[in-house]
Amino acid sequence: MSKLWGGRFEGEADSRFWDFHASIGFDIRLAEVDIRGSMAYARALGRAGVLTTDELQMILGGLAKIADEFRSAKFKLNPLDEDIHTAVERRLRELIGPSAGKLHTGRSRNDQIATDVRLYLMQQLPALEGELRSLQQAMLAKAERHLRVLMPGYTHLQPAQPVRFAHWLLAYFWMLQRDCERLHDALKRIRMCPLGAGALAGNAYGVERAWLARELGFDGITQNSMESVADRDYIIEVLSWAAILGGHLSRLAEDLVLWSTNEFAFVRVAEKYTTGSSIMPQKRNPDSLELIRGKAGRLVGNLTTLLVVVKGLPLTYDTDLQEDKEPLFDSLDALSQMLPVLAGVIDTLQLNEKRMLEALSENLLATDLADYLVRRGLPFREAHHAVGQAVLQSEQQGVPLSRLPFAAYQAISPAFGEDLYGILNYEASVEARSSQGGTALQAVQEQLSRARQALA
Amino acid sequence: MSKLWGGRFEGEADSRFWDFHASIGFDIRLAEVDIRGSMAYARALGRAGVLTTDELQMILGGLAKIADEFRSAKFKLNPLDEDIHTAVERRLRELIGPSAGKLHTGRSRNDQIATDVRLYLMQQLPALEGELRSLQQAMLAKAERHLRVLMPGYTHLQPAQPVRFAHWLLAYFWMLQRDCERLHDALKRIRMCPLGAGALAGNAYGVERAWLARELGFDGITQNSMESVADRDYIIEVLSWAAILGGHLSRLAEDLVLWSTNEFAFVRVAEKYTTGSSIMPQKRNPDSLELIRGKAGRLVGNLTTLLVVVKGLPLTYDTDLQEDKEPLFDSLDALSQMLPVLAGVIDTLQLNEKRMLEALSENLLATDLADYLVRRGLPFREAHHAVGQAVLQSEQQGVPLSRLPFAAYQAISPAFGEDLYGILNYEASVEARSSQGGTALQAVQEQLSRARQALA
Amino acid sequence: MSKLWGGRFEGEADSRFWDFHASIGFDIRLAEVDIRGSMAYARALGRAGVLTTDELQMILGGLAKIADEFRSAKFKLNPLDEDIHTAVERRLRELIGPSAGKLHTGRSRNDQIATDVRLYLMQQLPALEGELRSLQQAMLAKAERHLRVLMPGYTHLQPAQPVRFAHWLLAYFWMLQRDCERLHDALKRIRMCPLGAGALAGNAYGVERAWLARELGFDGITQNSMESVADRDYIIEVLSWAAILGGHLSRLAEDLVLWSTNEFAFVRVAEKYTTGSSIMPQKRNPDSLELIRGKAGRLVGNLTTLLVVVKGLPLTYDTDLQEDKEPLFDSLDALSQMLPVLAGVIDTLQLNEKRMLEALSENLLATDLADYLVRRGLPFREAHHAVGQAVLQSEQQGVPLSRLPFAAYQAISPAFGEDLYGILNYEASVEARSSQGGTALQAVQEQLSRARQALA
Amino acid sequence: MSKLWGGRFEGEADSRFWDFHASIGFDIRLAEVDIRGSMAYARALGRAGVLTTDELQMILGGLAKIADEFRSAKFKLNPLDEDIHTAVERRLRELIGPSAGKLHTGRSRNDQIATDVRLYLMQQLPALEGELRSLQQAMLAKAERHLRVLMPGYTHLQPAQPVRFAHWLLAYFWMLQRDCERLHDALKRIRMCPLGAGALAGNAYGVERAWLARELGFDGITQNSMESVADRDYIIEVLSWAAILGGHLSRLAEDLVLWSTNEFAFVRVAEKYTTGSSIMPQKRNPDSLELIRGKAGRLVGNLTTLLVVVKGLPLTYDTDLQEDKEPLFDSLDALSQMLPVLAGVIDTLQLNEKRMLEALSENLLATDLADYLVRRGLPFREAHHAVGQAVLQSEQQGVPLSRLPFAAYQAISPAFGEDLYGILNYEASVEARSSQGGTALQAVQEQLSRARQALA
Repeated sequence: MSKLWGGRFEGEADSRFWDFHASIGFDIRLAEVDIRGSMAYARALGRAGVLTTDELQMILGGLAKIADEFRSAKFKLNPLDEDIHTAVERRLRELIGPSAGKLHTGRSRNDQIATDVRLYLMQQLPALEGELRSLQQAMLAKAERHLRVLMPGYTHLQPAQPVRFAHWLLAYFWMLQRDCERLHDALKRIRMCPLGAGALAGNAYGVERAWLARELGFDGITQNSMESVADRDYIIEVLSWAAILGGHLSRLAEDLVLWSTNEFAFVRVAEKYTTGSSIMPQKRNPDSLELIRGKAGRLVGNLTTLLVVVKGLPLTYDTDLQEDKEPLFDSLDALSQMLPVLAGVIDTLQLNEKRMLEALSENLLATDLADYLVRRGLPFREAHHAVGQAVLQSEQQGVPLSRLPFAAYQAISPAFGEDLYGILNYEASVEARSSQGGTALQAVQEQLSRARQALA
Repeated sequence: MSKLWGGRFEGEADSRFWDFHASIGFDIRLAEVDIRGSMAYARALGRAGVLTTDELQMILGGLAKIADEFRSAKFKLNPLDEDIHTAVERRLRELIGPSAGKLHTGRSRNDQIATDVRLYLMQQLPALEGELRSLQQAMLAKAERHLRVLMPGYTHLQPAQPVRFAHWLLAYFWMLQRDCERLHDALKRIRMCPLGAGALAGNAYGVERAWLARELGFDGITQNSMESVADRDYIIEVLSWAAILGGHLSRLAEDLVLWSTNEFAFVRVAEKYTTGSSIMPQKRNPDSLELIRGKAGRLVGNLTTLLVVVKGLPLTYDTDLQEDKEPLFDSLDALSQMLPVLAGVIDTLQLNEKRMLEALSENLLATDLADYLVRRGLPFREAHHAVGQAVLQSEQQGVPLSRLPFAAYQAISPAFGEDLYGILNYEASVEARSSQGGTALQAVQEQLSRARQALA
Repeated sequence: MSKLWGGRFEGEADSRFWDFHASIGFDIRLAEVDIRGSMAYARALGRAGVLTTDELQMILGGLAKIADEFRSAKFKLNPLDEDIHTAVERRLRELIGPSAGKLHTGRSRNDQIATDVRLYLMQQLPALEGELRSLQQAMLAKAERHLRVLMPGYTHLQPAQPVRFAHWLLAYFWMLQRDCERLHDALKRIRMCPLGAGALAGNAYGVERAWLARELGFDGITQNSMESVADRDYIIEVLSWAAILGGHLSRLAEDLVLWSTNEFAFVRVAEKYTTGSSIMPQKRNPDSLELIRGKAGRLVGNLTTLLVVVKGLPLTYDTDLQEDKEPLFDSLDALSQMLPVLAGVIDTLQLNEKRMLEALSENLLATDLADYLVRRGLPFREAHHAVGQAVLQSEQQGVPLSRLPFAAYQAISPAFGEDLYGILNYEASVEARSSQGGTALQAVQEQLSRARQALA
Repeated sequence: MSKLWGGRFEGEADSRFWDFHASIGFDIRLAEVDIRGSMAYARALGRAGVLTTDELQMILGGLAKIADEFRSAKFKLNPLDEDIHTAVERRLRELIGPSAGKLHTGRSRNDQIATDVRLYLMQQLPALEGELRSLQQAMLAKAERHLRVLMPGYTHLQPAQPVRFAHWLLAYFWMLQRDCERLHDALKRIRMCPLGAGALAGNAYGVERAWLARELGFDGITQNSMESVADRDYIIEVLSWAAILGGHLSRLAEDLVLWSTNEFAFVRVAEKYTTGSSIMPQKRNPDSLELIRGKAGRLVGNLTTLLVVVKGLPLTYDTDLQEDKEPLFDSLDALSQMLPVLAGVIDTLQLNEKRMLEALSENLLATDLADYLVRRGLPFREAHHAVGQAVLQSEQQGVPLSRLPFAAYQAISPAFGEDLYGILNYEASVEARSSQGGTALQAVQEQLSRARQALA
């Protein structure tokens, strides 16, 4: 009895096909959850009277031993182990004999694998969330440490208005905060147990699905047996979450790569997160950040993969769905590296406050000048226009706004008073934006405090 | 004062560039929400003392008139209207003069557009949810009408086990139910108001952001001004939702396209959802379904578009982000057509119960036969193997399982009894799967009732 | 006889479905090629004796008139015109009566639309190639004008080695050169005529396919009628070409966006390719470039769309394939804007040679210093290591390499001679890379001359 | 001297970062081409006088030994081997001492890796082409064997016109033929040698690039050193080729999966390319085909990955580009399994000619009936309409077209003659489509002969 499904087959599989379809190479990482699922299922069969107490004990004992073998890396694969399920069943038979064949009563690999992957996600996603939380923590700590550091804020990479370094960093905090929320939302749907759906039609052995779900730590059960084995939303949603999160990380990486250039020089990535060049002795490349930015690509690619796979697939289970696991594992693995590396980079990032200050130019205060004119009665649009002309003249004359003579301002608009020069102050500009979520010190402190709460 | 940002500019824009960057061609559909947002912002400026009561009334009056012009399709575009915001501001200036220029005090197009798109989604997504609910309703009604119809259930498109037609259709109900849940989850994050974030640094005019949010029907405000204008998660999440939903619809379409073939002939799509051929007079193609399946592609493509756009983008706003709206609108438009058409197809779908019954073959009962052997004491794996051999022999002899002589069964396994032939009953098979979510009548009725609750 | 395929239909189509499936909204741009194809097909029917000379003349006359109506924007659509083919046929019937019904003898919309799109591509792609060539020409002209300008070359955005501005720009020339080659490769496959394939089975009227192909300017015919109507490679290949080209343009845009920052300030995008801010009067944003970078996203998204659509589609024609045209047109339209705008940006780009020179630092000559040690007998790896240590010391002491005392060099490696300081020369560094494709003046001049040849 | 680029570094890399950025896990498969490239480069250094004859011999000897170690799987990795290049250099140093450090004179990992991957593709792609050719060969052989088998041809999966099985299969032959052409086109661009481009600025040691290119079997050299190290088109083009090919394979798989259903039953996939079910004893699933269809998804995903990675990347080399190899290798590996498995499936596919014949219905001859009316003088559109009405009546009366009484035909159109019944012949229908690429026997034979030529 070679293959577990072999009764109606006359010959052997083609060897190239066998290698092609075997999934043990990647689903072996499900061993622990697969065995855990089998133990619960065995107990459910016991409760349903399908297994005697002795059979149940034998099966549980055998499974415990197999789990040990996996834990201690002593489990030996066999060429006919096409996937983790057959590997475990085969080994169980070796250990306890034909009773092993009772474990799969009424269970299909279709509901089993859906259960396995959900259990795996219920294990891995909180771990990833921990890494995400650590990264957020590193951001908060950094932001708090440099609360008073001013720097240019950019739109279109052109200097826009002065902002606090802490405010910039907190922008990313909130992106990650939404990533956490999305993760929780996804987990709500992941934590539904499909076990008992069988191949597609449900279970004929009186197995209590709700009991099984509780036993395995799920929040509830799936509602339709056909859907239970056909559905891969719980993976796609994770891949989508990962792609969105990857986008955030790629943007943060981009900002830091730019700021690490000689030309910006706002920050310096700690040496231990950089590498050199095989040919250029002076090099010190922030490739930790570049790699994080690049890996955003594979997170999108993995999502695309599964979206293509499910497109137009008839119900219920088709082998196409076996292609769900490699992109999932790849995205989880990528994130489990990206997040702590980025946390390390943030934690050890050196700021060059002097360069940040030098990069502030008076043009960043043009909006404040327009606001000043508004206070003096000009409609904002006219104020904007007047300051725009002042900026143009200052550029044409090669002087900053504070060196443009008052007569020039007057010629542009009589609304300018001599006190205009007092407006050209970076600290004042930042403090003026005191609305919630703005750059003023108190606003940023309140933001920090909300962030701390969100993290708690 | 040609362009609203024109003060510091000396000449005209290149005309090809102007056409290239103008977004009025597609963001004009935001007119209503843009004006609504401006009205609220004007009131906030009034509350903050930036506008006098008279100015406020003039502005509100002008905006109301512009809204009317849009509603009655009398609004006239001007070649310098680069986007909906400038079009409205330009028109307001024509209507009420320079006071129009006070409306944008402290507001940037960056926070304005983010507010507009969120308001638009708060309007459109519930409408789409309505269409989704109608489709689910059509499914429920259809399922209830055909509760007792049996048909082959498939895995790998090979006959697996008999199932109820209603059970199959409900499988899709639950997919859509998750789509509704995901929509609600997305809406939680959409319903956060970014107005007051300014260009990137916040608002310097004492505008009350929480008041503004309430006034516009948001649930709260965004926490960081830089993030508020840089973030496009709220669109990506909708695009991801649409792509996942599209996958579901494509699978349902696939099932129905297959079942509409001459070879399956389980269903007939109502004529009014089919078309003919320009050359083949007999044709009656289910192209409503094919188009739904095909449009799953653009839903994935649109998601990809925006994921690529945001990859590696520095904070805060970059014009790349202007590429967010066309994919969003395209996905929403596609769904607003796909959902009602599919609801119509489901509602009018004719079932060919006779063909469904004929398509049942005794092979679909092989699992029941194995279950029978299990009840007679065989471990499931051995039972599976024994029945597999019976199937093989029945095929080799060209007879169904019920015609394979008892001696043949006996030769395969002494566990077979003569009562085995009684097992070969489709109705009994379906009824045996009585676990929650299974095919038994009561289980499906309970499922229906949970579905009705979910829809309520 | 309402719909052209209406004979076997009893009622009307559902109106929402009709709107859903009608493609006239976007395929109307195929009017000219559709009519051209019909004229050729009518002539082929004449040659095959299916049409009399009189009938042929009537049909050709009617089609010519319809073409005129389209050209002069006088063609009036009718609600039953589901696509461009039915619109033209309907109008032809209005103009010449029932003989119009002879035009489609043996032709299906399936082979017709494949022919139309190929003809359209044969028209549009050379036009796009022209725009690509103009952009390359703008690059060459710019490179020639600034042949001697030195600037830092980057890897990882960190200063690497000095290069010529012209050399940097030519890097993009060659990317576009490959895009041209790829376009030609795609066109080879596009220029195969599917007309005569019918719905799927070929033509039963003796129409000469090779004659038709020649008549319409194709290079040959497709080889299999089923494949002819099922294939969409010719579109996917164009979309892939567009996505790769988009990647190139996005990289060039990124470089220029960076260099337009205050911090780099190597270049200044001409005012007419920039815009301002609605709130910040000083702004002058290079949004032409940002939009080009952003549109790379939709080019990828459009490719994804069609790859998803064709996945798992059974032969031959399925309506899913109707989803091919919108992404195609969108990508062509995007490129037809991106290319000339970018050419304009390049052409008018102002260089700040002074800033480029200032951005050169002696660290960029570290490789030259290592090369110097190699010439003095050190294995390269040791030389690299020694210079690395010198760089470290220079940084620790806050002095450039040329100010690090000779004793320090000696302490690192006795291979350093006092002539090491002479090595620290940017011009010499650039000239040293004299291999083909390198930075030396002669190498770049040769490169320019090969580029000129490639463009000719 | 731990890391090869370590001179300017003071401490160790962070261990999580080190694992994150190390590529040896996947680039080790480049060992052979890397060493081959190094041997050629050493010889070039010898020709340039940088290496003495003795040094050259030592280096070549060392490299040969390392190649042997890889071939015999005796090469031992070291934790500091971050990539294949450093692994080889480290081992060479162990074998021959400090002279090893001379090998990399003037060469960077940037030009080295680009050379390696191109060499690898020059090796792997022809191998894949061989598999593609074998699949085409299997198709041709199968088509020839079943030249006379008729079956329904489908559009929209609805019966359209009768076709030959061979004709259907040849449709796929031509898709693959284009894949071969595209592969050759891609190879033209791959076969350009970047070696000598250095890190980005070219080579300062007089290395003869053209000689190097010839020595390594390239057709020419790349034209710009900066582009040479920044470009990844040669990989994207392969990934795009793979995605398009994957689309073709997925469509063939879909057709065969459908035809393997009980309901179609046109073909039977050989048992050795199927698997069973863990729960349903009767199952025999065509999962070879489903897996091929599913893997089309990852081929699209891999393409997406790299398109995202390169979007907006500044010149020249950024570590993001390290993300190019895993998707490339994954796509090549997937195809190297998909192609031979599919060839095996085709080769062993059993046809059920009887079922194919039974699936032909007279409706498939409706077009022939319309053609008949055309020959009797009706415009095609009227003929189409008349036959459409006949089809409708035959359906309403539940009889095939041949049983619809003549009076009914006459009532529809007086153009029908009694000889209409003679038209209803499948063989005649197929033979009528005698144009090139049509279904007639001679046309298919000619097609086969052209296919044989194309393959030769």
